[in-house]
Amino acid sequence: MRETLTIKDTRLMISEWKSEGLSIGFVPTMGYLHEGHCSLIKRAVSENDRVVVSVFVNPAQFDRKEDLNRYPVSLEEDREKIAMHGGDLVFIPKAEEIYPQGFNTLVEVENLDRELCGATRPGHFRGVCTIVNKLFNIIQPDKAYFGEKDYQQLKIIKTMTEDLNMPVKVVGCPIVREEGGLALSSRNARLSAEERKAALVINETLREVKKRVEEGERSVGPLRREAVEKINLVPGVRVDYLEIIDEKLLQKVEEIEGRALAAAGVFVGKVRLIDNIKLG
Amino acid sequence: MRETLTIKDTRLMISEWKSEGLSIGFVPTMGYLHEGHCSLIKRAVSENDRVVVSVFVNPAQFDRKEDLNRYPVSLEEDREKIAMHGGDLVFIPKAEEIYPQGFNTLVEVENLDRELCGATRPGHFRGVCTIVNKLFNIIQPDKAYFGEKDYQQLKIIKTMTEDLNMPVKVVGCPIVREEGGLALSSRNARLSAEERKAALVINETLREVKKRVEEGERSVGPLRREAVEKINLVPGVRVDYLEIIDEKLLQKVEEIEGRALAAAGVFVGKVRLIDNIKLG
Repeated sequence: MRETLTIKDTRLMISEWKSEGLSIGFVPTMGYLHEGHCSLIKRAVSENDRVVVSVFVNPAQFDRKEDLNRYPVSLEEDREKIAMHGGDLVFIPKAEEIYPQGFNTLVEVENLDRELCGATRPGHFRGVCTIVNKLFNIIQPDKAYFGEKDYQQLKIIKTMTEDLNMPVKVVGCPIVREEGGLALSSRNARLSAEERKAALVINETLREVKKRVEEGERSVGPLRREAVEKINLVPGVRVDYLEIIDEKLLQKVEEIEGRALAAAGVFVGKVRLIDNIKLG
Repeated sequence: MRETLTIKDTRLMISEWKSEGLSIGFVPTMGYLHEGHCSLIKRAVSENDRVVVSVFVNPAQFDRKEDLNRYPVSLEEDREKIAMHGGDLVFIPKAEEIYPQGFNTLVEVENLDRELCGATRPGHFRGVCTIVNKLFNIIQPDKAYFGEKDYQQLKIIKTMTEDLNMPVKVVGCPIVREEGGLALSSRNARLSAEERKAALVINETLREVKKRVEEGERSVGPLRREAVEKINLVPGVRVDYLEIIDEKLLQKVEEIEGRALAAAGVFVGKVRLIDNIKLG
């Protein structure tokens, strides 16, 4: 496996592969890889001739400095995991090269960023769009892989890519979970044993919402209220948001009619976790 | 010369050329081509294997509906001019395909859009950046050509392209002028004979500013005041802005030290014209 630290070296490797007519899959990450990331890499390897994984903790998408500073890093293990799953290149850019002095450009998807994480993390998705746009232009992949855990992120990146006519196919991949149902996240590493147990209530509650919808409940009001109450009852756990939204427009609905999504952002201790489940 | 009306057909043509290893030059226009545009096409032809010219009156960059509705169109003559100067493909997209329902994405360059046209045309440069970003992704040119008349636009597009790591070289080309010094513009077609004569004061005044700087004047205050007064004295002519700015940061300066630019936006009757001149 190759490793590049600069945009120039990365472009050189990519253009060599392009000149050989090889297809390129891309998995952008912030490192501290877990099985969720590994599932993206495996999928990319199965669908492309060469696979690039980037590891970059993007300061532009953190609304809370505390969250950025505490974001876990494990470069050695990341390298091993990427190589083990068949990645061909790991690109580890420096923040100074990604955001040089005088950097002034932003990419933003409007409307889709109003609810969920967009409502409580100002500027977050602008930061995500801008870095993903840059990475797409550097790597020029045929396909790029994102997890469905960050459903809003996936939707926003798909929209950005289509709206801007970027020649990249954005592929969404299923959430990977621990045995108890907790969605894998690099942030889980910051949970104590007790918190990890408490965090199970998130997916448990979302599954209950799904079950009640399958049983015929259509009215969002009571569904949502009871779900929030249930989660907030667990000591040390606090709902940041829990919404039932239209799967396409990402807008709140009052009645569940077409394809909908229940999505939650929940603080477990100081760690903010997200999860979602498709309804109907 | 080929002509495409859809993104798909354009991509097909481009990918054929790319697969042959041909370099691609790109000249984005809003049509109603004049000698300024032709100079861009000629430059592109001299530097690339294939040249694409787009003709698209971009609604997103017009802050005044009146200006959009009155923007002149001359598709027949445009085609002839593009072919005559060696263009290989003219791409004439439809607004419905460029901005389909649910279009939500914008690209913006901050800070550089504060002065000049950015100060008086809200959203204008966001519209310019977004369409140019889209066209770059569709055409995937090696080089793209823009006139220096829209100096702020050129600077902003260069910044966007570099900030987002787009693999395109943005080339600025000198202003082309009529004999009396009036900068060529598609909007000149809307001037009466009298207005066209009155409009000469714009370049005349900018040249005077340059001369006074060459003679040693460094203080922007009096230079600017006298220039605005001189232009506003001409009946039917009104300064929208006239500023002396740092050539790199596009911020107003009080003393001319390094490379500076005098730039003006001027209403002649109902038509808004722009021009600029490099100082020092």
